[in-house]
Amino acid sequence: MASSVDSGEVPVPHIKVDPGLPGIIGLFEYRPETAKPLLELTEVLLRGPSTLTRGERELIAAVVSRGNECVFCASAHEAFAAAQLDGGESTAAQVADDFENAPISGKLKALLRIAALTRKDGRSVDEASVEAAKAEGASEVEIHDTVLIAAAFSMFNRYVDGLATELPDSPAAYTERARQVAEYGYVGRG
Amino acid sequence: MASSVDSGEVPVPHIKVDPGLPGIIGLFEYRPETAKPLLELTEVLLRGPSTLTRGERELIAAVVSRGNECVFCASAHEAFAAAQLDGGESTAAQVADDFENAPISGKLKALLRIAALTRKDGRSVDEASVEAAKAEGASEVEIHDTVLIAAAFSMFNRYVDGLATELPDSPAAYTERARQVAEYGYVGRG
Repeated sequence: MASSVDSGEVPVPHIKVDPGLPGIIGLFEYRPETAKPLLELTEVLLRGPSTLTRGERELIAAVVSRGNECVFCASAHEAFAAAQLDGGESTAAQVADDFENAPISGKLKALLRIAALTRKDGRSVDEASVEAAKAEGASEVEIHDTVLIAAAFSMFNRYVDGLATELPDSPAAYTERARQVAEYGYVGRG
Repeated sequence: MASSVDSGEVPVPHIKVDPGLPGIIGLFEYRPETAKPLLELTEVLLRGPSTLTRGERELIAAVVSRGNECVFCASAHEAFAAAQLDGGESTAAQVADDFENAPISGKLKALLRIAALTRKDGRSVDEASVEAAKAEGASEVEIHDTVLIAAAFSMFNRYVDGLATELPDSPAAYTERARQVAEYGYVGRG
């Protein structure tokens, strides 16, 4: 629902990026030296070898971005999750709205709770939330990666909105980019 | 002052990291696949070619980490700033306590204000704060890098505290590591 472009507000970016490249895409082109490790980090976290599926990891990124009200990142990663998830768009939309009642595993819900705590403040991730995830079958690497994905999107959301980047003209841009990410990854076409 | 180790609290990490490797050091060893781009990002942002000095960039990292009350990151980057800054430890301590009244340039103060806004919420970086930095002589690349350093430490702080990593046994560990970072950088000895 709220994952579409909010055409009511047109922010002027704080720095001169290519107006044809919305969101983080323009920032990657503006500063390739930082784009390289940022894209590599995204590739490892969201697409590298993992016992979490790519769709599940995109959902963590989407839920954190939605929590931070970063329209560009939330819209993008909801589309990327939809493109790579069992249940596709319907599941991604339900998770974005209310993951506690979405048709996903108990383990993923426990990990999304940890991600939500990390987003707020790292210190709020308590032992109870970690033990609950382990009781649902989460491994320590999965807990590590969940915290780092949530932390990384706490960065990306601030980067995109802190420089007041623009949104794409049409929501179709997110689904087109989702096809590219699902096929080539973040680094392949970065 | 508060940059020393708080020996009163001994958190138990949420995952099994090497107990001899405090803070982010143990996390880097735990997951080398993510350590690589994280260390490269830090190297580019805090030590790569820039019109901001290395000491100034470490101060941005320290102020954000202090704002997030991440004891490990704040202590480390205050020590790294002190090792690479005109005025050394005294200036780093004054900036950490109250940068508005510290003996630093008007430009750096304006950038630290942008960093503080980014830390709170990317959307709070307003045009007025950006124009104020430009009026003090800040370039657009400096503004970009300030936002990204603040965003990156919003990630590192959550990563370190979200997994409840331990502090070093002694504050001397920070000054020893500061010597290594000043000489070899983040990647050289990562």
